[in-house]
Amino acid sequence: MSRQELPVLADPSACCVPMVTEALTEDAAAGLARGFKALGDPVRLRLLSLIAARAGGEVCVCELTDAFTLTGPTISHHLKVLREAGLIDCQRRGTWVYYWIVPARLAALSQLLDVSAAAASTGSTR
Amino acid sequence: MSRQELPVLADPSACCVPMVTEALTEDAAAGLARGFKALGDPVRLRLLSLIAARAGGEVCVCELTDAFTLTGPTISHHLKVLREAGLIDCQRRGTWVYYWIVPARLAALSQLLDVSAAAASTGSTR
Repeated sequence: MSRQELPVLADPSACCVPMVTEALTEDAAAGLARGFKALGDPVRLRLLSLIAARAGGEVCVCELTDAFTLTGPTISHHLKVLREAGLIDCQRRGTWVYYWIVPARLAALSQLLDVSAAAASTGSTR
Repeated sequence: MSRQELPVLADPSACCVPMVTEALTEDAAAGLARGFKALGDPVRLRLLSLIAARAGGEVCVCELTDAFTLTGPTISHHLKVLREAGLIDCQRRGTWVYYWIVPARLAALSQLLDVSAAAASTGSTR
């Protein structure tokens, strides 16, 4: 199965340093904001969570469309936005397209927002 | 200092369960997507990181405007979006407004994207 690395993953500055530790550079912010923008829609967030909850496996697009009252083309559009933001990848096999998450990209966004180090030293209210 | 809890923080379903563990409900996705949407802009992401990097402290709006080539009203608009999404809070004292992060909200978004449990069991490439 071919799984090409996306450009967003090739940028080491876009990965892994919590913002409570170090302020973002302009370049890093651009790549990371693209990821968050893709997550900033309830349908896309649910689509991603349905794929992610498959415990490291793949999800057929046919299962994803069944989970929503939206049309197939609308679901496909949202999946394309998630894919272009580097959050998921896919492969067509026969009739269907299968999707999976890109853990490194999700981890980078998660780690950026990780406040546990700061929270531990300053208390839980700020 | 008055620091009122924001509605987004009062929703327990909007907090803390990684999406690799459990798919999101429609209601939870709406609240969480609002947070990610606010992060989906490079200027807002840099503003948030400048506030977050102050190690649990506050940042005067005067310092934030100095860090960008944007106008004061543009910076204020972006700060308002971050505040309305529950990511930061603020207080006016004298001439200036002071901003700080809301760690619980950042932690909820971070934990939602945490793939470490799944990554540990399936390897680093997916």
